Amino acid sequence: MALLSSPAEAQQQTRYTNGTHAPTQGNNKTRREEFLGVYDVLRDWLINDPLLGDQPKSAREHLKSALDYNVPGGKLNRGMSVADSLSALVQPKVPSSEEIFQADVLGWCIEWLQAFFLVADDIMDNSVTRRGQPCWYRLPQVGLVACNDYIILESCIYRILQHHFSSHPSYAKILELFHETTHQTSHGQLMDIITAPIGTVDLTRYTLPTYMRIVTYKTAFYSFYLPVACGLLVGGTGSPEALGITKDICLRMGQYFQIQDDYLDCFGDPEVIGKIGTDIQDNKCSWLVVQALDRASAQQKTTIEEHYGKDNDRSIAAVKAVYQELQLEDVFLKYEQESYDELLGIISQQQLLPSAIFTTFLKKIYKRTK
Amino acid sequence: MALLSSPAEAQQQTRYTNGTHAPTQGNNKTRREEFLGVYDVLRDWLINDPLLGDQPKSAREHLKSALDYNVPGGKLNRGMSVADSLSALVQPKVPSSEEIFQADVLGWCIEWLQAFFLVADDIMDNSVTRRGQPCWYRLPQVGLVACNDYIILESCIYRILQHHFSSHPSYAKILELFHETTHQTSHGQLMDIITAPIGTVDLTRYTLPTYMRIVTYKTAFYSFYLPVACGLLVGGTGSPEALGITKDICLRMGQYFQIQDDYLDCFGDPEVIGKIGTDIQDNKCSWLVVQALDRASAQQKTTIEEHYGKDNDRSIAAVKAVYQELQLEDVFLKYEQESYDELLGIISQQQLLPSAIFTTFLKKIYKRTK
Repeated sequence: MALLSSPAEAQQQTRYTNGTHAPTQGNNKTRREEFLGVYDVLRDWLINDPLLGDQPKSAREHLKSALDYNVPGGKLNRGMSVADSLSALVQPKVPSSEEIFQADVLGWCIEWLQAFFLVADDIMDNSVTRRGQPCWYRLPQVGLVACNDYIILESCIYRILQHHFSSHPSYAKILELFHETTHQTSHGQLMDIITAPIGTVDLTRYTLPTYMRIVTYKTAFYSFYLPVACGLLVGGTGSPEALGITKDICLRMGQYFQIQDDYLDCFGDPEVIGKIGTDIQDNKCSWLVVQALDRASAQQKTTIEEHYGKDNDRSIAAVKAVYQELQLEDVFLKYEQESYDELLGIISQQQLLPSAIFTTFLKKIYKRTK
Repeated sequence: MALLSSPAEAQQQTRYTNGTHAPTQGNNKTRREEFLGVYDVLRDWLINDPLLGDQPKSAREHLKSALDYNVPGGKLNRGMSVADSLSALVQPKVPSSEEIFQADVLGWCIEWLQAFFLVADDIMDNSVTRRGQPCWYRLPQVGLVACNDYIILESCIYRILQHHFSSHPSYAKILELFHETTHQTSHGQLMDIITAPIGTVDLTRYTLPTYMRIVTYKTAFYSFYLPVACGLLVGGTGSPEALGITKDICLRMGQYFQIQDDYLDCFGDPEVIGKIGTDIQDNKCSWLVVQALDRASAQQKTTIEEHYGKDNDRSIAAVKAVYQELQLEDVFLKYEQESYDELLGIISQQQLLPSAIFTTFLKKIYKRTK
């Protein structure tokens, strides 16, 4: 049930860090630094939070370590895109620096949400590394204390929101958005675990409806819908209609993004994506195996059943051969074009929100090769 | 860091179940059944929550099991006392059945909060049983999926609050109260772990300020302050002044309750409390060892250091002998009387809230022998 650690995403991190694909206008490195500056403000407030009174130094230091180790080390795409959404929403006006700060605070709450799910996910998956360093729970001084640390990580979100948004007209809506997203993401995690329990292979569970549910709940809500919805709420455009349109479009983008990820894992150029895919040997409920099982002859099905989830070159090659026979590359390219056209259609049909909110996102991910 | 599983508390469960100490007027068994009926309503709504759309049967069944196994099996004292607080607040009027229902919904949110902390606590403590059954994470079909289950258990609180309180005038305050209590409780857990890490004995950390902080944050906020504060918010009396007074009194009661618990673990009658205490051999940061270390001669300190946290009769007897030499029973009885007098004084000095809110609570716990 590994969350969001695909090669394509890992690569994207580098792309953003290099500043070659600025998510907002202007110098991207400066923007990233500006965003990281907001983290420092939030972290410093949290470790001195008056709610906990005069904390002993040991507790304060543990909290600081847990935050610094787990919150700011990701790609920050999700977090930074709240301000992007706000900017697209209010154009041709430019958001004030106070509005950008508010957007960035919500952006960091999304990064906090991701951090708390990743710490939990790594414990459940018995993972070894995350973002190029040992998983938090693997550190000798941490261990299963991490089970309490991710509770703290999550509750920090609501401390931040109370401190910065309690007098905002959309305060209750913002709280509900984070609660709902947490519930949806944890449901996605549950679905993922139920579908592919560690150590078992049962391909009858790998159906398209199940796949789409996992992807939507586990990833699309918090990675695609949440940032844009936060942008709308900061911008004062959080009507049920606007949020409804946003949800429809963003979930479709999230699904498309994950399907791309699964495609690139097998068919992407390892030189370009920076990693050799392992979905086949890892028994992942990938879009490719779902499509294959849906189209396979009895004999091809037997081949998949025999070889999927086995970590040896012969088994991997056998599964890939079935994918080739079923022309899954073409199936994907057809899906990609249809999905793109459909998304553009939906985006242009609605009049409530500026198309740029969605098209800037879409351009970043459409036909990416890494 | 075992949460709330003291013999005295376990015994209290029986007492309530037997209906000999009704927390509200009328037949206690009926009241308990009424409260449990509200659980069924909440559980049935959650497993059909429209936010998760048309969930597959497997996910629905997993959620139902996780809820039924972990939420309603406790003493329910905390949950039922929200309605008690409301009743004391509005007397001589009697709350309407709709108000009691609202109080019970908040009461169940407290039970949900406790359930989520207990599931996490058992994983961290490597515990075997809880409430007379195997810990949730110990079930073969569960395992570390429990790490996601307690995220779900927590997020259920906010699904329930949104469904039942989103149009309540104190909605944001209620959300903040649960967020704050979660943050405080997780800080208490952290303090507990830092002070007495599993497998190490370092008595220099067992000081009174540390003890009081652990007890206050880990237990008193959610067990004593939260239920009464919920009662005030349902009753429309949630001014900062009223909540401030309530916090002051309830935290003192929570501290007193835990100190009693620690006293009874060593000096209570095992026949009466229904269990033989194990705090000494379990290396617990108990009020008794904190008091002993504060008063001990160099020789007595050496005895404690040599024998505390060792599970053999000689060591236990050696520590108990030091407790006797230091007359800790008298120290406790003096503290108990002072604490009681002080509490009654504070309760009678304030005019903002009916004393009965606090005195009914206090009478239940003062000079209890089990």
